[in-house]
Amino acid sequence: MTRTHVLICRGPDCLSRGAQETYTAFTRELAALDLPEDAVVQTQCGCVGPMCGAGPTVCVYPDGVWYGAVTSEDAAEVVREHIAGGRPVDRLARTRLTRLGDAA
Amino acid sequence: MTRTHVLICRGPDCLSRGAQETYTAFTRELAALDLPEDAVVQTQCGCVGPMCGAGPTVCVYPDGVWYGAVTSEDAAEVVREHIAGGRPVDRLARTRLTRLGDAA
Repeated sequence: MTRTHVLICRGPDCLSRGAQETYTAFTRELAALDLPEDAVVQTQCGCVGPMCGAGPTVCVYPDGVWYGAVTSEDAAEVVREHIAGGRPVDRLARTRLTRLGDAA
Repeated sequence: MTRTHVLICRGPDCLSRGAQETYTAFTRELAALDLPEDAVVQTQCGCVGPMCGAGPTVCVYPDGVWYGAVTSEDAAEVVREHIAGGRPVDRLARTRLTRLGDAA
């Protein structure tokens, strides 16, 4: 059962900042976790407007964390700390979307 | 401030089932809400593996609701009920991703 959906922006600005290399690094680091199939779904996504210019942008859902300036070198830390460990990486996190009903 | 991120799959299977028309309908319905800029971010995304074959797939985050078989005619209902009203549309919802710490 899917627990996490990781989105890496493929907008032109993020691509110009290395988003394809970031995407590839996430694929490699997630594969290394050897998780059950579909436990983590990784996709590209279109431009995440409010983050444009501050990428490569990576969104981790349903936690709702938006990361900025995520290089391929950062992928291992996000995968290890946040996706496997449940601890968002504060130094890269730019904002967190709150759900309806969440404490403000 | 962004509250909701809506993703419409642009994978080949979803596109063959009308995902581009669904995407366009969401754009139209969201614009009609006249929300503050960036309150809702709408993007396309790559194939959402576990949902492939059951699309067009629409993911609404951070609520974590995955919708299947969302036609352009369904867009108004999802926008009105879920995105504006905070009430997920049960007849279209296929699964909901839970966050770490959520009740099972």
